[in-house]
Amino acid sequence: MRTLPHPATEAVRLDTVLTALADPLRRRIARQLSEGDAAQACGAFDLPVTKSTSTHHFRVLREAGVITQHYRGNKILNRLRADDLEDRFPGLLRAILLADGTNRHDPPQL
Amino acid sequence: MRTLPHPATEAVRLDTVLTALADPLRRRIARQLSEGDAAQACGAFDLPVTKSTSTHHFRVLREAGVITQHYRGNKILNRLRADDLEDRFPGLLRAILLADGTNRHDPPQL
Repeated sequence: MRTLPHPATEAVRLDTVLTALADPLRRRIARQLSEGDAAQACGAFDLPVTKSTSTHHFRVLREAGVITQHYRGNKILNRLRADDLEDRFPGLLRAILLADGTNRHDPPQL
Repeated sequence: MRTLPHPATEAVRLDTVLTALADPLRRRIARQLSEGDAAQACGAFDLPVTKSTSTHHFRVLREAGVITQHYRGNKILNRLRADDLEDRFPGLLRAILLADGTNRHDPPQL
């Protein structure tokens, strides 16, 4: 089974997390994972970009430590590392998703 | 009196704030402003970069809406827009400065 590399929680860097979440599409992915099923395939995200760009954004999130990605058959399931991020940087993910939803009616559900 | 442009609070964008604060030197500036005197001249910051690089970092913070910069004589005084950011993105600045201090003993004082 092919596996993808993930940083350990203690190796997750603030610079990288902030850069990853400075992009609105990547916040949209994180937000959808925070609101819906814990594990969602890449195809469950309706993103206005090509598949290769979408793949790039998921990889940036994984390498930053924001999500995990694991193969199931020929799909990749994505999960938000909400607990890991909360351990590492308390309140940060919640504040960013809340800020992202400032002009929306639904608060983030973490 | 020469003045520098600042975005209105409601025009401050999350992408720009996160990009501004993804840089450790810029977080160091924000952190020092959150901990010390409300208004500090650029020369009060002991940054390991050239003056022009330092000026660039202050400008990025100002244009992102993180700090204000106002001339007093031939100095520029910098202030953190903590209240504006709290209005716009509740909890965000505190969470970022707290995360930045994860390996330090002193929590941010906001």
